[in-house]
Amino acid sequence: MGMIGGGTGSFIGDVHRKAVAIDGMIELVCGAFSSSAEKSIASGKALLLPEERCYGTYAEMILKEAALPEEERMDFVAIVTPNHMHFEPAKMALEHGFHVVCDKPITLTLEEALALKKVVEQSGKRFALTHNYTGNSLVKQARAMVAKGDLGTIRKVQIQYLQGWLSTAVETTNNKQAAWRVDPKRSGIGGALGDIGTHAENLMEYITGLKIEELAADLGRFGDGRILDDDGNLLLRLENGAKGTLSISQIALGEENNLAIKVYGTKGSLEWHQENPNKLTTHWLDEPMKVYTPNGNGLYPECLQVSRIPAGHPEGYLEAFATIYKNFANHLLADLNGEIIENPDYPTAADGLRGVQFIYAAVASDNNNAAWTKM
Amino acid sequence: MGMIGGGTGSFIGDVHRKAVAIDGMIELVCGAFSSSAEKSIASGKALLLPEERCYGTYAEMILKEAALPEEERMDFVAIVTPNHMHFEPAKMALEHGFHVVCDKPITLTLEEALALKKVVEQSGKRFALTHNYTGNSLVKQARAMVAKGDLGTIRKVQIQYLQGWLSTAVETTNNKQAAWRVDPKRSGIGGALGDIGTHAENLMEYITGLKIEELAADLGRFGDGRILDDDGNLLLRLENGAKGTLSISQIALGEENNLAIKVYGTKGSLEWHQENPNKLTTHWLDEPMKVYTPNGNGLYPECLQVSRIPAGHPEGYLEAFATIYKNFANHLLADLNGEIIENPDYPTAADGLRGVQFIYAAVASDNNNAAWTKM
Amino acid sequence: MGMIGGGTGSFIGDVHRKAVAIDGMIELVCGAFSSSAEKSIASGKALLLPEERCYGTYAEMILKEAALPEEERMDFVAIVTPNHMHFEPAKMALEHGFHVVCDKPITLTLEEALALKKVVEQSGKRFALTHNYTGNSLVKQARAMVAKGDLGTIRKVQIQYLQGWLSTAVETTNNKQAAWRVDPKRSGIGGALGDIGTHAENLMEYITGLKIEELAADLGRFGDGRILDDDGNLLLRLENGAKGTLSISQIALGEENNLAIKVYGTKGSLEWHQENPNKLTTHWLDEPMKVYTPNGNGLYPECLQVSRIPAGHPEGYLEAFATIYKNFANHLLADLNGEIIENPDYPTAADGLRGVQFIYAAVASDNNNAAWTKM
Amino acid sequence: MGMIGGGTGSFIGDVHRKAVAIDGMIELVCGAFSSSAEKSIASGKALLLPEERCYGTYAEMILKEAALPEEERMDFVAIVTPNHMHFEPAKMALEHGFHVVCDKPITLTLEEALALKKVVEQSGKRFALTHNYTGNSLVKQARAMVAKGDLGTIRKVQIQYLQGWLSTAVETTNNKQAAWRVDPKRSGIGGALGDIGTHAENLMEYITGLKIEELAADLGRFGDGRILDDDGNLLLRLENGAKGTLSISQIALGEENNLAIKVYGTKGSLEWHQENPNKLTTHWLDEPMKVYTPNGNGLYPECLQVSRIPAGHPEGYLEAFATIYKNFANHLLADLNGEIIENPDYPTAADGLRGVQFIYAAVASDNNNAAWTKM
Repeated sequence: MGMIGGGTGSFIGDVHRKAVAIDGMIELVCGAFSSSAEKSIASGKALLLPEERCYGTYAEMILKEAALPEEERMDFVAIVTPNHMHFEPAKMALEHGFHVVCDKPITLTLEEALALKKVVEQSGKRFALTHNYTGNSLVKQARAMVAKGDLGTIRKVQIQYLQGWLSTAVETTNNKQAAWRVDPKRSGIGGALGDIGTHAENLMEYITGLKIEELAADLGRFGDGRILDDDGNLLLRLENGAKGTLSISQIALGEENNLAIKVYGTKGSLEWHQENPNKLTTHWLDEPMKVYTPNGNGLYPECLQVSRIPAGHPEGYLEAFATIYKNFANHLLADLNGEIIENPDYPTAADGLRGVQFIYAAVASDNNNAAWTKM
Repeated sequence: MGMIGGGTGSFIGDVHRKAVAIDGMIELVCGAFSSSAEKSIASGKALLLPEERCYGTYAEMILKEAALPEEERMDFVAIVTPNHMHFEPAKMALEHGFHVVCDKPITLTLEEALALKKVVEQSGKRFALTHNYTGNSLVKQARAMVAKGDLGTIRKVQIQYLQGWLSTAVETTNNKQAAWRVDPKRSGIGGALGDIGTHAENLMEYITGLKIEELAADLGRFGDGRILDDDGNLLLRLENGAKGTLSISQIALGEENNLAIKVYGTKGSLEWHQENPNKLTTHWLDEPMKVYTPNGNGLYPECLQVSRIPAGHPEGYLEAFATIYKNFANHLLADLNGEIIENPDYPTAADGLRGVQFIYAAVASDNNNAAWTKM
Repeated sequence: MGMIGGGTGSFIGDVHRKAVAIDGMIELVCGAFSSSAEKSIASGKALLLPEERCYGTYAEMILKEAALPEEERMDFVAIVTPNHMHFEPAKMALEHGFHVVCDKPITLTLEEALALKKVVEQSGKRFALTHNYTGNSLVKQARAMVAKGDLGTIRKVQIQYLQGWLSTAVETTNNKQAAWRVDPKRSGIGGALGDIGTHAENLMEYITGLKIEELAADLGRFGDGRILDDDGNLLLRLENGAKGTLSISQIALGEENNLAIKVYGTKGSLEWHQENPNKLTTHWLDEPMKVYTPNGNGLYPECLQVSRIPAGHPEGYLEAFATIYKNFANHLLADLNGEIIENPDYPTAADGLRGVQFIYAAVASDNNNAAWTKM
Repeated sequence: MGMIGGGTGSFIGDVHRKAVAIDGMIELVCGAFSSSAEKSIASGKALLLPEERCYGTYAEMILKEAALPEEERMDFVAIVTPNHMHFEPAKMALEHGFHVVCDKPITLTLEEALALKKVVEQSGKRFALTHNYTGNSLVKQARAMVAKGDLGTIRKVQIQYLQGWLSTAVETTNNKQAAWRVDPKRSGIGGALGDIGTHAENLMEYITGLKIEELAADLGRFGDGRILDDDGNLLLRLENGAKGTLSISQIALGEENNLAIKVYGTKGSLEWHQENPNKLTTHWLDEPMKVYTPNGNGLYPECLQVSRIPAGHPEGYLEAFATIYKNFANHLLADLNGEIIENPDYPTAADGLRGVQFIYAAVASDNNNAAWTKM
């Protein structure tokens, strides 16, 4: 794996590195960790990489790695830059024969997302988007329960992804994470929408297997001078007639990383909270509430195969993240071995496109006073 | 107290009776418990009332009681009938000199609500609406915290009132409670909206002190053949620029009586759940999460004076209900003693009118594809 | 019902009155609320009792009530005094033909407990002890699950009753509740043991149906100058070979009223917490965790018949207390009607005797450096 | 790092490998993963190690690695075998100049523990014991709060470590994990005592900074034919006069990995649960309950420096485990750089000795009918 972005001090670059390390399937072999060659090299050294594989630019990395013998060069790139720096490196990597793992949202604009999806298809390379929350074992259980019909027909969903860290003007206090997220040039047309809204949208569609048909979005820009949304309340209509709400915020003071979902069907319902991910609560027409835990009783294989440690030993954010990488790595291995994996279980460019469509639909709806907008 | 409705087997009549009994301030002295005189008398007897004060109709009760000597006759009536039977008895009671306690929603129609509010004003009598959830001690604490500015400016609210008991067609199974609630003739134009939505609306306005300015409502009618909403997702805009969601359902399978609210301000936030009412969770800009319990540390007098028993001794639904009655009774006592209570703390006809306006605005919005509608 | 003790300002007297009021089966008709005739009358008046039935002493009350015509006089007395004032009034009431409801622990001393049990038996009158926590509907469910063998053979129990209100020397601050509880003359040889330990012991034996065979107790007297225990850690051995711990405290700072129990069997286990009484958590060999709620799915009739209101409408401390009185009242009614109730479901003098035996065994063990002591 | 034990299919070996990978400071370079050379090599290959560094025995590994040039050979060994295989490899590694990380309990017997502690001291090498739960960031916070006196004088502790996986005779069902744990030859004189009791003992002493002075232990051997304890209830007396309970079980059906602790002082109290490790609940004399989360508000540096990811992103079992290794690695680095770390924060041989003393004291007490036994 070669990394683009994620230099020393980066939050998400470190997360990717820790996550891939857990399962021992992937090794970081090179990187262009910063647009400054100097910083990139310093970061690479701190990561114990050989200096010759700490590149000054992603372009340099892609070209030089492509020139290495096959068994030496990186197998794929991981792109962990702000949104405006996803498309070009991803395209270039794919076109030079490298698989790609990319942070969400997939690109800065809808045009880019459409274009990148095509590039992926034409390249024949694998592409994974790190919607990491779908890597939780109990999210797999939830998805399996819906898919097998345990919950009956889905009627109502509630999704929220609430944070409070932008409650004050932290973007003016030398907080790099905040600065680029409130900047349309680096984030795109969505603020919270892109940063966390796409996770919420993706998680909901992943668990329910249902697509959002149309949405009505009322966005907030509560922080002084903010151009992008830092809050949003959405009504959802799903393809099967189900309805729901999706609420996001980065000014929900006190909320840390409160991604949560409830799904109500005609036979059962379920509830999952990211902040306590080792618990899946379910209700049933004629039975008491049942609570599932990773590696506990009553789970489907889709869930069991994801847990790494026995029941009662909590897995968290990094482990879920790692599962995305593990499934991606297994796909690459299968390709190498000439095996076919029917439905490789990690988010793809198609999911990424939906995410950007979600951002665009929500912004369009908001611009139109929360009118219903097709996604 | 004389009761209208609430005969044997009624859910809410029994709740009112148990609730008033707790504080020992109010005595049930008569009733017209059913539109059938026979049933009314049977119910009254079961309640150990003298037969002569078990009336066949509410009109009979009001007239006969009014004819009794002042120290013998009931002081007020409690109306616990389905919605279509609120207006007439309330009006008649008020016009015959009786105070009134009435179940929500205040009336079947907006016209009636407007008219009844006027009747109350003209009568000079007291009128309480049993939005019982505002009787919880920690709801008082929440309201006080917002009022005192502890949370700063409110930016976002999330309210939900979710039940699942209408997930199947229970109205066809001899379930009286369900039957009238899905019947427009007895419920009015709102189903879940009137039954639980008004509680949610009232609780939010009570805690935040902010009025809903406009709303966008997407209602569901998921049960086969249902005319009235059994589900609803609403966007809210409050008078101060805050935004939010309000979600209600009676087809949220597995939910029992999940009324919950979150309020986010610029300095703090709070969260309260009716099903575990003895816990108020708060977050702060620079301090750890604080959790308040009835009669625990750090509470305002508004909260402390409501708790009946020491910290750790849970109070529940009936106790909150009782608080509405207690505050109402204290108001009547103050009147008797010529004392003035500045802001008597129980829901009034004005709150009732807002509830019906909420129902009407939501139905109008829904009829207009969830267009923004002033409340 | 006539009340002994519980004058204005009393905690537990008010609890008893509120509790009996809920179900409307019992009416307070007289009282000797204080050892001061003046205070007793003032208290009675505040409770709207006729002055002639506010007695100056319990003896006067028992004698004068006994002299009233049967249909006028009180049916039973409720004794809500400190421990040293249980035996004499109970004995006198029983011997004058009145049933008795009495607070726990049943008496100040073991001799009194043995004697009172005999008095009850000889009198032919009914006697109830207010181990109120057994009145919770989910405690009934727990007991039923064990009794029906759902949990298999019980192997391990954990019981705790933790409070923190005696963490500081509140008995020196004009706190009447604290003052008598730390005073051996009014409390007996057990402090926390009698006040809350007996509840814990009773709840455990009630749910498991198993008696404590022997115990080893290490008591603490942490408060300056305290003679009686304000903390205790006990090992338990039950009659069937199960083992466990019982921990009590009134100096567990921050704990409000944390009575909780876990029971582990060979086929299942259960957990219940008084502070959130509307939830019973269970685990099973081959099934996921199941959580039961009052009036929810999957309950036994023993539980269902106790709940007063629909699922999701929380019942609390007063309601559980009321259940003890309701079951007692139903027993009296059955007696009046010549019906026989096989196992009337409220704590009796035999339970009271066990409670005092528990206190004595624990104190004896503690005096012997926590040596095993038969109960 | 070279690993002893932990071949394919091992639980804890994999945990160690995943844990060390997270922080990227430690690399697995060799191993003697099994007493079968063939299995060892197969395991090493699966871990992508070069065949020449997959050794057939730990002795071979230690000798051959010691013969490698300093910059090539492993820096330390990680011993992840059953208890009976701790002492010899640890001793040999230390005596051949390797630092050691070892699973708990440190050795099979007290004699070995005493001897190994001496070997460590004489070797001048570093030794870490993987009491992994002390690696949780909120455990650091808890320890810091006690150390700084926030809780005042500690009066009471409650510790439990409850599991249910030995509720049935799984040791007869080809379950390797169970088989050695119930076998005195491989586990030593303690069953649950050694496997989980030592964790509980260590966690309590780590958080409170207080040593157990004496204990009274009532052990259970509930599984058919079990020689070693699978359950235990203990009374504790701490060096400062505090008292408490410690309860362990592997037959507490339904419990997964329920390690939990409560500590009560004169000014505050705290509560932490391993299964939801991202929450530390505290109570205070005059303030409401405060709940701390990793990287949330109000934390001490001792806690903050342990968290890897922002608040709300849950860390779990592996991350806590990783912290032990990280602190150990930092100590080795400091040594290399000639820096001195005053109180390196990981469990040592002294902690290991205390753990074995705990096992011995508990077994001795149990053999003496739970008599108080000095630790």
